[in-house]
Amino acid sequence: MQRTVFFISDSTGITAETIGNSILAQFEGVQFDKHRLAFIDDARKAEAASVRIKTHYAQTGERPIVVNTMADRALCDLVAESGALMLDVFAPFIGPLEDELGAKRSGAVNRSHGMVDFEKYEARINATNYALTHDDGRDFDYSKADLILVGVSRSGKTPTCLYMALHYGVSAANYPLTDDDLDKLELPRRLVPHKDKLFGLTIDPQRLAQIREQRLAGSQYATLKQCRWELEQADKLMRHAGISSLNTTHVSIEEIASKIFSRFGIERTMF
Amino acid sequence: MQRTVFFISDSTGITAETIGNSILAQFEGVQFDKHRLAFIDDARKAEAASVRIKTHYAQTGERPIVVNTMADRALCDLVAESGALMLDVFAPFIGPLEDELGAKRSGAVNRSHGMVDFEKYEARINATNYALTHDDGRDFDYSKADLILVGVSRSGKTPTCLYMALHYGVSAANYPLTDDDLDKLELPRRLVPHKDKLFGLTIDPQRLAQIREQRLAGSQYATLKQCRWELEQADKLMRHAGISSLNTTHVSIEEIASKIFSRFGIERTMF
Repeated sequence: MQRTVFFISDSTGITAETIGNSILAQFEGVQFDKHRLAFIDDARKAEAASVRIKTHYAQTGERPIVVNTMADRALCDLVAESGALMLDVFAPFIGPLEDELGAKRSGAVNRSHGMVDFEKYEARINATNYALTHDDGRDFDYSKADLILVGVSRSGKTPTCLYMALHYGVSAANYPLTDDDLDKLELPRRLVPHKDKLFGLTIDPQRLAQIREQRLAGSQYATLKQCRWELEQADKLMRHAGISSLNTTHVSIEEIASKIFSRFGIERTMF
Repeated sequence: MQRTVFFISDSTGITAETIGNSILAQFEGVQFDKHRLAFIDDARKAEAASVRIKTHYAQTGERPIVVNTMADRALCDLVAESGALMLDVFAPFIGPLEDELGAKRSGAVNRSHGMVDFEKYEARINATNYALTHDDGRDFDYSKADLILVGVSRSGKTPTCLYMALHYGVSAANYPLTDDDLDKLELPRRLVPHKDKLFGLTIDPQRLAQIREQRLAGSQYATLKQCRWELEQADKLMRHAGISSLNTTHVSIEEIASKIFSRFGIERTMF
């Protein structure tokens, strides 16, 4: 079974998409064909969206699903004329919150992903620059690091650091364990003073070989044997040094980041 | 007025936080003190969360607000014993969707940010590597670029490219306009064959000077005069070349990305 979903927003559509994906993921048997209609903030755009959805409905005979975060009731009504199933993300929560807070919602367009607070923006950008300059052992001055990821090449360190920087303003460095480190089974000297900031990433050897093969096909670096050796040594090294680690094979970047934050007690909220 | 909010999830907490922030942003007069409690997936953890919230309630006398995405009713009930206002993110939508789809939700833990689809993961990682290798004019082979951001130094190109890569698997390069390009008022030769992939980022001169001053204090590069000249020239160059552009001064990274996608008709949905 396949159904078409439209995420409609008067702003970026990120909230509509995030909650929509979470709800739809609970219906595992259904395939969803997803479309994002962002910045629908006037009657002309809402009518165009409505026509597009209605046309789709007529062509497929299947009722489309709309996940909607537009604040303006009149625009919602225009989209509803398409005949789609309307799921209004905010409506169910506004009433209880108004009662609890004793305040009315401001009818404003959803600005949660559009607001710019210069201080927060700078924190994101500074952390992103930090991740870039402290990527892959480029700069070893870890005095300002919130945390340092260690692991073998291609275990997922770089994207995780970038994600934590962009979304949480966390300054994360990463240090690749080299063959030399792995031979010696000793924590690299420059990491020793920062032991409490270290966190290890590991991965299944088959998966690592696959990722490396994609990068450097036919190389010694990508052989299963080499991957297995590196991962076994890294595992021993981390256990000896008392470093917590996580196997990233079946874990998304978001989940890796959340688990690391839980481990370090970082409750900073996202931007 | 200040109120405390707990985002509670049996997984990463990203959905709870995203929708929670959007709803709370609609109550502009209220300050919210936000906490994320992730991976609350058994009775022991739910009880601990409940005790923490209840204690907070007793100490402050203000009823806490819980934005909840836990799937298990029994765990929700445990947290509700804290006396907090419970906002259950999924509950209002499950009924209408079950009716519409003629299918029952799977009671599973919310996996929308935990699932790993190797193909999608690779798309994210490859795009992130692309953004890193094609950052700041490092590699000029733009044949595989989905789009290329142009602008003066520190106009926001790098974080935007990384965000689009990590979240949408979009391969975005960026090219910094140099003094030489700006003097000539000519589109750099290597960009000419890719004119339909170009998008410009601009920024207010005062803001740019501030950002550059933070990076290289007291430099000629950070003077308002230099910033103003570069931005004026860049603006002329882009207008002559027919390149769309966006002023990023008051726009978040998420919104910049969404606007660029709208411009290029990219409807790819997020990971």
